[in-house]
Amino acid sequence: MNGQLKIIAGRSHPIFAKAVADQLDVGLTPTDVVKFSNENLMVQIQENVRGADVFVVQTATPPVNEGIIELLITIDALKSASAGRITAVVPYFPYARSDKKDRPRISITARLMADLIETAGADRVLTMDLHAPQIQGFFHIPVDHLEAKTLISDYLRRRKLDDYVLVAADAGEAKDLGGYANRLHLPMAIIDKRRYGDDEKARAQHLIGDVDGKSAIIIDDEIATGGTLVEAANFLKASGAQTVLAAATHGVLSGPAVERLTACEAISELVVTDSVPTEGKEIPQMKRLSVAKLFADAILRIHHGESVSALFR
Amino acid sequence: MNGQLKIIAGRSHPIFAKAVADQLDVGLTPTDVVKFSNENLMVQIQENVRGADVFVVQTATPPVNEGIIELLITIDALKSASAGRITAVVPYFPYARSDKKDRPRISITARLMADLIETAGADRVLTMDLHAPQIQGFFHIPVDHLEAKTLISDYLRRRKLDDYVLVAADAGEAKDLGGYANRLHLPMAIIDKRRYGDDEKARAQHLIGDVDGKSAIIIDDEIATGGTLVEAANFLKASGAQTVLAAATHGVLSGPAVERLTACEAISELVVTDSVPTEGKEIPQMKRLSVAKLFADAILRIHHGESVSALFR
Amino acid sequence: MNGQLKIIAGRSHPIFAKAVADQLDVGLTPTDVVKFSNENLMVQIQENVRGADVFVVQTATPPVNEGIIELLITIDALKSASAGRITAVVPYFPYARSDKKDRPRISITARLMADLIETAGADRVLTMDLHAPQIQGFFHIPVDHLEAKTLISDYLRRRKLDDYVLVAADAGEAKDLGGYANRLHLPMAIIDKRRYGDDEKARAQHLIGDVDGKSAIIIDDEIATGGTLVEAANFLKASGAQTVLAAATHGVLSGPAVERLTACEAISELVVTDSVPTEGKEIPQMKRLSVAKLFADAILRIHHGESVSALFR
Amino acid sequence: MNGQLKIIAGRSHPIFAKAVADQLDVGLTPTDVVKFSNENLMVQIQENVRGADVFVVQTATPPVNEGIIELLITIDALKSASAGRITAVVPYFPYARSDKKDRPRISITARLMADLIETAGADRVLTMDLHAPQIQGFFHIPVDHLEAKTLISDYLRRRKLDDYVLVAADAGEAKDLGGYANRLHLPMAIIDKRRYGDDEKARAQHLIGDVDGKSAIIIDDEIATGGTLVEAANFLKASGAQTVLAAATHGVLSGPAVERLTACEAISELVVTDSVPTEGKEIPQMKRLSVAKLFADAILRIHHGESVSALFR
Amino acid sequence: MNGQLKIIAGRSHPIFAKAVADQLDVGLTPTDVVKFSNENLMVQIQENVRGADVFVVQTATPPVNEGIIELLITIDALKSASAGRITAVVPYFPYARSDKKDRPRISITARLMADLIETAGADRVLTMDLHAPQIQGFFHIPVDHLEAKTLISDYLRRRKLDDYVLVAADAGEAKDLGGYANRLHLPMAIIDKRRYGDDEKARAQHLIGDVDGKSAIIIDDEIATGGTLVEAANFLKASGAQTVLAAATHGVLSGPAVERLTACEAISELVVTDSVPTEGKEIPQMKRLSVAKLFADAILRIHHGESVSALFR
Amino acid sequence: MNGQLKIIAGRSHPIFAKAVADQLDVGLTPTDVVKFSNENLMVQIQENVRGADVFVVQTATPPVNEGIIELLITIDALKSASAGRITAVVPYFPYARSDKKDRPRISITARLMADLIETAGADRVLTMDLHAPQIQGFFHIPVDHLEAKTLISDYLRRRKLDDYVLVAADAGEAKDLGGYANRLHLPMAIIDKRRYGDDEKARAQHLIGDVDGKSAIIIDDEIATGGTLVEAANFLKASGAQTVLAAATHGVLSGPAVERLTACEAISELVVTDSVPTEGKEIPQMKRLSVAKLFADAILRIHHGESVSALFR
Repeated sequence: MNGQLKIIAGRSHPIFAKAVADQLDVGLTPTDVVKFSNENLMVQIQENVRGADVFVVQTATPPVNEGIIELLITIDALKSASAGRITAVVPYFPYARSDKKDRPRISITARLMADLIETAGADRVLTMDLHAPQIQGFFHIPVDHLEAKTLISDYLRRRKLDDYVLVAADAGEAKDLGGYANRLHLPMAIIDKRRYGDDEKARAQHLIGDVDGKSAIIIDDEIATGGTLVEAANFLKASGAQTVLAAATHGVLSGPAVERLTACEAISELVVTDSVPTEGKEIPQMKRLSVAKLFADAILRIHHGESVSALFR
Repeated sequence: MNGQLKIIAGRSHPIFAKAVADQLDVGLTPTDVVKFSNENLMVQIQENVRGADVFVVQTATPPVNEGIIELLITIDALKSASAGRITAVVPYFPYARSDKKDRPRISITARLMADLIETAGADRVLTMDLHAPQIQGFFHIPVDHLEAKTLISDYLRRRKLDDYVLVAADAGEAKDLGGYANRLHLPMAIIDKRRYGDDEKARAQHLIGDVDGKSAIIIDDEIATGGTLVEAANFLKASGAQTVLAAATHGVLSGPAVERLTACEAISELVVTDSVPTEGKEIPQMKRLSVAKLFADAILRIHHGESVSALFR
Repeated sequence: MNGQLKIIAGRSHPIFAKAVADQLDVGLTPTDVVKFSNENLMVQIQENVRGADVFVVQTATPPVNEGIIELLITIDALKSASAGRITAVVPYFPYARSDKKDRPRISITARLMADLIETAGADRVLTMDLHAPQIQGFFHIPVDHLEAKTLISDYLRRRKLDDYVLVAADAGEAKDLGGYANRLHLPMAIIDKRRYGDDEKARAQHLIGDVDGKSAIIIDDEIATGGTLVEAANFLKASGAQTVLAAATHGVLSGPAVERLTACEAISELVVTDSVPTEGKEIPQMKRLSVAKLFADAILRIHHGESVSALFR
Repeated sequence: MNGQLKIIAGRSHPIFAKAVADQLDVGLTPTDVVKFSNENLMVQIQENVRGADVFVVQTATPPVNEGIIELLITIDALKSASAGRITAVVPYFPYARSDKKDRPRISITARLMADLIETAGADRVLTMDLHAPQIQGFFHIPVDHLEAKTLISDYLRRRKLDDYVLVAADAGEAKDLGGYANRLHLPMAIIDKRRYGDDEKARAQHLIGDVDGKSAIIIDDEIATGGTLVEAANFLKASGAQTVLAAATHGVLSGPAVERLTACEAISELVVTDSVPTEGKEIPQMKRLSVAKLFADAILRIHHGESVSALFR
Repeated sequence: MNGQLKIIAGRSHPIFAKAVADQLDVGLTPTDVVKFSNENLMVQIQENVRGADVFVVQTATPPVNEGIIELLITIDALKSASAGRITAVVPYFPYARSDKKDRPRISITARLMADLIETAGADRVLTMDLHAPQIQGFFHIPVDHLEAKTLISDYLRRRKLDDYVLVAADAGEAKDLGGYANRLHLPMAIIDKRRYGDDEKARAQHLIGDVDGKSAIIIDDEIATGGTLVEAANFLKASGAQTVLAAATHGVLSGPAVERLTACEAISELVVTDSVPTEGKEIPQMKRLSVAKLFADAILRIHHGESVSALFR
Repeated sequence: MNGQLKIIAGRSHPIFAKAVADQLDVGLTPTDVVKFSNENLMVQIQENVRGADVFVVQTATPPVNEGIIELLITIDALKSASAGRITAVVPYFPYARSDKKDRPRISITARLMADLIETAGADRVLTMDLHAPQIQGFFHIPVDHLEAKTLISDYLRRRKLDDYVLVAADAGEAKDLGGYANRLHLPMAIIDKRRYGDDEKARAQHLIGDVDGKSAIIIDDEIATGGTLVEAANFLKASGAQTVLAAATHGVLSGPAVERLTACEAISELVVTDSVPTEGKEIPQMKRLSVAKLFADAILRIHHGESVSALFR
């Protein structure tokens, strides 16, 4: 029903795009991306795409803003080249944490990103573990939303989980924890953070629930600078936890993250996926799980008009 | 800068609209709403509104869907009558809990509502305590989002809060609790609900945190059938709580709520606002706080181009 | 060329949707529609519809406004579920009589309905005997407009029509009468209604044309409360008509219609179609004609890209 | 509230635009319209219009299609010149009779016209006596719809109307006649036209109602070639009418109209307005009424944000 | 993948549309275009087009503005008749020279044209040698832009080009000349025109480069009145050129062009294509090249989803 | 008529924004721009802007793509903060050279930029010396387009221009040169560049016109790497020019530009404006002219609804 399946790799994460294409047993559609000395980008699709079912893979990784513009230009080029259907494949969605107006006169930038992607001409979006599920509603085009929960749960289940407890690093993360708790049949605990005075950062104050003598698993959607995570892990150790394992879909690992996490003895293991590139970011405790097959399966189902939710049943 | 300030009361909550208009010392702009025998509605604005700065007050209360259509028709009538600016004032937003796609092939209906309101021709929206703050991002027109938190906190503070603890009825509500906890300097606890088997309802399983010998305050954004609340209150009593107080912005009180809450001895007090009409719904423990002044203040600031966020500083 | 043909029945008229699907020899695509205690609706499509050619059948019948919202939610769910093409099948279009601005500061609500259906994401509309043919122009998506004229004319022709005369219940209906008059080779008469004073209802004043000793056929697009019809029938009897037969596409029969028409001795026969459900509305003189086959034929032609107008040649 | 009032005359009817501007006591804003040898038009607004409240007067008169393009170009020029508000003043709306799809695979061109005017950038429309009131619903911008009914009725009332009867030239026109009938307290009659065979033109067959010995007034919204009118007048004379007076808002008088109407002895008087230019079209029986003051009053009310419907109370 | 290929000829250039259809070995899809006495157009597509891949051929030639409206009406009719894909084939694009705002308060009418074509419902555009390549950016739908350069160059190459020089009639045309110069390996010269005083026309002042004793080829995208060309040719002769050959894609030949060019002895040959009809415009020196095959090739490639740029490799 | 005038400085060129604000005698509206470790930007407007007439100054300078995203976020924040009118002030427009599709399957990115700025919510754009004037047509919102021509011409006129000649660095630039030539009454020459083989760069081949013994002025809209300019200057010297002066509106000076131009002895003087920051880019021959006053004048006129074109009369 749809035209020929084509995968285009943006410059953000070519290894991942290649892995997806390999799973699908198709070659990457070649593009020529030039960055001129004035930093303007030029994207040329190198083969005919008229009527094709094109998936453009671009994740949010530095240079993030340039990557967004590159994605928009690529979509625009595909549209004017008469591609049959254009799907933006964005494993880690940029600006996903800017999803609400928690102070006056700011932008809900995740919504703006959705608008920009639609304006450029995308017909669909494929993404994973958005910071809030409501972000899907920022789009007027169909969104397929994948979850790493099964993959990470299966990985965690390989060990005996008898003495484990799931921990939310703050009350705001408790909601997502529920899905893991139901799946792994584990108790939960929540770190209660408080802010004293307007300017001060929220700090871990005490633990709601109990980790004493247990192994704690901190679950989050992303790990950025690792500051919150390291503070939480130390707090849990001080609260009596034997070991602390951290798992997150998006291993952003920005700024001081690598150094900080490497130095953190409280964390015995760190699980992330390849939704963002972590090449060159070596952390001894880090275990990478690949979601390339998950994306490839979803792309194939989208291409053939089969249910994507069936992947998660 | 804007035209004359006018307030129009939809049929959903005329008492509230009148209270807001009284605060503003303006009369309600008269409308004629006819429901024909075939249930089609006809809305006629009864006075000239060209260039006026019109606020239409319509909240989500039964008949909810008819109320939505009435709101859309009123906005369309105002637009074609050349109103200068149209603000939909929706104290309790319909379909706010349909804000994500938590099962396949459903509608994110809160987003659809936003689209419909924009399509009808609204220029702005004024609402309060959306189920998720991300819903604000469903709109492309400016939204002013009020909070009952200050009002409810001030009310709670009138008592000595030494032995109180804030409780989230499930992990998903823990996030919003944080704001109250910081403001009232109270500890938190969370009821951990689990689901066994696919079809079964989630049930309160055990408590994360501690309420033994304390007074518990359950905070939520809305109380619908009261089922969750009654279950939580009973569970808290069984967990050793001395008294249970419940507070919610939106007193929806649908279905068996009145009977159920009246009969619930565990709940000593129930605090709601007048964002939805509760006339005729008499619950002995219920205390109603009015947000009419809050809305009136916001409308006046919108009308005069003054900061609305300043109301919450 | 289009995906698989699927028929979805809204809750307004499941018997009709089933009759259409039976004609097409396809099963209805199952949906789960939940009305929560707060009256919010949840519509879930129960099987994969990616790429499918989906027809959603929803007619305007009480609860009319809830039915509209249900239709919009269903369309939105289908769109986000990646349906290939969505056709709103609306046998009796809601708010079709709100098609002009015949007093100041009202909404042309039929246009608003068109906008809402487009906003929700419908690709096409299939409807029948709109109150005014101009309503088709309210849409920017293709509309297929069916007519019951052939069906009703064929039914009328079964009797000897020698002494019959077609009557318009007021001057505004004379236009549509022309089609029937040409087809059945019958003379016409028009009831001249006048309004005295601003508030007073228009009343049948005298007859333009002649029905003396003849059988009168009153033709209209819909019968709502039956008030106009009963008044017209009595007037025609008083003007010398032997019998009065009434025919209308849409048997809305709202409010006192059943009682009133049952009691009206002047009307010997009442012909309507099943564009709106009349189950439970028993009127002795009523004859129901089914348009299910007509809709099924149209749907099949739309699905296969064949001419729909060819149905009326 | 709005910027400075400015009137721009398109080339279609400068005399009328001047008359309107004179009523308003403002000068016409000068424009330079060049038609190049390749027939492309260039419109330059000759003075600053930033923030101004601009009314562009363009009626449908030959060259009709060039006039439409000129109007669109003028609106586009005004928009890009930062006009504050642009109102298209279109006394006689082009393609108003193409308001429905009465045969397969045609355009509802009146709707297309509405779309084009909105696309070019008009904020409002001011027009008069649209062929069908539903056309107002083709617009998403506010439309003010004037009526010549009062003006024409007042003119007719100057004579003694005792023996007059209002006549619709065919059943389709009967609806509009009602307004005049109520206002003038006159009886109605309708010419019944029939079509035999597919290709044949509909022809006046017989009269519903009675004109014998009376003076007939034929009312229509426009007179184009005059063919229908002359046939009707002759038919009425043959049916016993003493005199025939014809009145129509829009004196289009296209093709053979002038010659045909001049030659028609059956018509004793012909009343039209100046909504389209009739300069050079001299018909002895013709009486022109001016709607310039009506348009000027409406423009002033729109400019000042006062009710336009009040003009018709 | 696309529906059946259909070609529709607007009334502007039926010979060309027929030539294109003949190349494609398909018949023209019949239409009925009626121009009523009031100059309103009615376009009816005479056969079913549901799902079809329709190309509407309409070029800019007198009556230009009527031709534009006809194109828009045809597109609208096709859209509402459920055509699968609609391509506006516009060999010579109207208002292409109105592509910038070179004086205050004018319209960039080429952009307006793009907007109108999109509003009417076209899915794609196929055109040739736009006055400026930027005009392609005025569209949000895909544009295929053909060039006559290869065709004209091949024609020129048939002669020995040793002593030829390419000449731009003014500095503004120098840019496009580059493509020809590179292709034909010819030197260039430019006529320097200057304007003295505000109102005066720019006049050829002196030559930059050298044509003495050479044959000059003046290249432009279109020839309108021929005034610039004749002036340039005379100036080149006076500057020593032996012969002057003029070539342009679009032979508009408006106003005095035929007479003027026939009389111009300086021009020995005039090459144009059939992008606009030149029937009846006989100029002895004129040579017509046909681009019908080029358009047919492009249409076939668009229809089959093959690269159009490959035509120019 | 408009709200309070406010100027916001993006981070791209704060010195220029400050200079403009100083000219207007208003302070810059404070903003807080945070770049998080994951490179996401957060822009908060620090004071109430409801109803205000806000001008956001952001030019295209490295990091260009981040600057674009920052501009879009700022506009979105202003829109949701209910700014009355938002004008994007973009002295040097990003991607202006990507204004046409000069190879297959690329994006016309200047058009995409226009779309993005409109999508974010800008009401107007103020820019200067776009690479092609057609780019103005990429916008559907009003654009005010300033020119540095007067400023640069006035600067050049301070010397005796008797022996000067204006030179276009290639044929494509000849068009813009005309404006300067007319204004300064100078002769022109054009460097003819040719490309041999597909991959090879175009190279200066010979000169059309004459510079022998004269002073050459090369005029362009921007100087990027300076490669073209240095080649042209050397070529002109080799062609006999005494001195070479270069002038361009936008001193982009990217990559090796500073080093290359400093080293170029052929260029005696280099004139640029402050449309892009050149702080830290010291070139001995460089003369900077400020356009801050020009922008300030335009902003004031836009704010007050006065003609901007009057600035250039």
